[in-house]
Amino acid sequence: MSPSPEFVLYVLDLFGTAVFAVSGALAAGRRHMDLFGALVIAAVTAIGGGTVRDLILDRHPVFWIRDLRYLAVIAGAGGLTFAYTSVFRPPRQSLEAADAFGLAVFSVVGARVALDAGTPLVIVVLMSAITATVGGMVRDVLCGETPLILQEEIYATAALGGGALYLGLRASALPDAAVMALTITAVAGVRLAALQWKLHLPSFRIDEVQ
Amino acid sequence: MSPSPEFVLYVLDLFGTAVFAVSGALAAGRRHMDLFGALVIAAVTAIGGGTVRDLILDRHPVFWIRDLRYLAVIAGAGGLTFAYTSVFRPPRQSLEAADAFGLAVFSVVGARVALDAGTPLVIVVLMSAITATVGGMVRDVLCGETPLILQEEIYATAALGGGALYLGLRASALPDAAVMALTITAVAGVRLAALQWKLHLPSFRIDEVQ
Amino acid sequence: MSPSPEFVLYVLDLFGTAVFAVSGALAAGRRHMDLFGALVIAAVTAIGGGTVRDLILDRHPVFWIRDLRYLAVIAGAGGLTFAYTSVFRPPRQSLEAADAFGLAVFSVVGARVALDAGTPLVIVVLMSAITATVGGMVRDVLCGETPLILQEEIYATAALGGGALYLGLRASALPDAAVMALTITAVAGVRLAALQWKLHLPSFRIDEVQ
Repeated sequence: MSPSPEFVLYVLDLFGTAVFAVSGALAAGRRHMDLFGALVIAAVTAIGGGTVRDLILDRHPVFWIRDLRYLAVIAGAGGLTFAYTSVFRPPRQSLEAADAFGLAVFSVVGARVALDAGTPLVIVVLMSAITATVGGMVRDVLCGETPLILQEEIYATAALGGGALYLGLRASALPDAAVMALTITAVAGVRLAALQWKLHLPSFRIDEVQ
Repeated sequence: MSPSPEFVLYVLDLFGTAVFAVSGALAAGRRHMDLFGALVIAAVTAIGGGTVRDLILDRHPVFWIRDLRYLAVIAGAGGLTFAYTSVFRPPRQSLEAADAFGLAVFSVVGARVALDAGTPLVIVVLMSAITATVGGMVRDVLCGETPLILQEEIYATAALGGGALYLGLRASALPDAAVMALTITAVAGVRLAALQWKLHLPSFRIDEVQ
Repeated sequence: MSPSPEFVLYVLDLFGTAVFAVSGALAAGRRHMDLFGALVIAAVTAIGGGTVRDLILDRHPVFWIRDLRYLAVIAGAGGLTFAYTSVFRPPRQSLEAADAFGLAVFSVVGARVALDAGTPLVIVVLMSAITATVGGMVRDVLCGETPLILQEEIYATAALGGGALYLGLRASALPDAAVMALTITAVAGVRLAALQWKLHLPSFRIDEVQ
């Protein structure tokens, strides 16, 4: 018997929480924050998007109050990042790679939550993007990093595309777990490929007006 | 028969949404974001203030989930900005001018919504300012622009003044549509004049302490 | 007869609101904002943390709509700061000192509110930190100051520690007012001592990877 899609999604959600917490701890580490400062940034990054989503959809209590495992995962992931980076040097782009996995997982989680709330499909796509990007935006703004969403490499497109792709595949005959796996693979793959080969869509060019 | 004040307000609200979406797309364009990145910034700018207002007033579902026209207007205005700026150079201060119109319209919209919610008058003025300024603040912080609210030229004063003026004129015998039109004209006029002639109120001078 | 703990807490809450409003007005003053711009920043700083707390805990109406004294205190404290700094030069670290007192008071206020809402203890500690730090974070981000939470001197640790210490002392036989006073003294003392002597916990060192 295979695990239920709900269980798969829950495990994925905790995994996304962990990788976003790692990305937050790494960003904090670049600014020489101490353990508790890093845990605050890790928590904001990992639960920021889902919190805004829950507030907008009026889902109470918000997910991390209802289920304390999220905070436990953040504490564990943040603490391990602190320990690891005090011994080894993380690869140069580890923050962006962790962010890419979180982006992919949370775009699916956000779409599922919005579907369960019965919102129109365009709102589902938007909630997918909000869940996936808000935590990282707050992390970057607080830590003085250039927000990843400003990068030319495909980012917002991947977040919006994750929600849309999930809805599209869901209309197929594929089992739910396969739809989730395909969407996550596609979003993370596109984002990591964009980082690796500096791929980007045509972009605005209006700097001449400054 | 003239249109009802409710209809006038709704049309104005969609207009304010459009000009704030344009201001968001222009700010995104200065950072060379692609179309979808620009649409995310346009949406945050256009619905950020009203979303915070609705959350604080516990109005659910928030306005852009209840009525999908707002998102359609944002997509249209953002897309047109993308198309226009790929051919023409927008005037140097177009971002600030678009923001000024959005500021004026949303200060009236925010005041009306707060009045409908039955809040005390001082809260009405505050909700007016929140609706009018939060989206632009998030836009500026995300895009690395100096927040307009930090500019010396009259800005926060115009936002707070819009709510107060609306309440004041409403106590007169003027018809509702005229009150709205006068308030919007005054707020946009003051802000644009302040930009044009670098007008400002007396300001703090405590840099010597740094 | 001594005043009830509820009354003591309420007075403290208004005091914390005032000192955070001062810190916001000082940050606005460094950027040469005018009176109304400074009042907006003062208000965001003073009520930002409690607002996010109330929204997450679904407490409506939020505290500053239910009780307009908070806004009156902000207007008074902001206006006095404007008047004072137009005559005298505030000491160089007055912003950080005001922030330290606000941090201490709001960590206790946040813990009390979360306890009253019946949340689990780990959430109480988190709500303590959210109430104490969110307003200051928004102030720093809007005013282009380096967020205090990024400073190496003990900050997030003091915010989290305030909630934990309050819970710990509450389990003792001490009267409630004493528990509040001890916690506030400890948090403000630790933060001010850290500023004075540049104390910090061991921190991340991963800048080499950049």
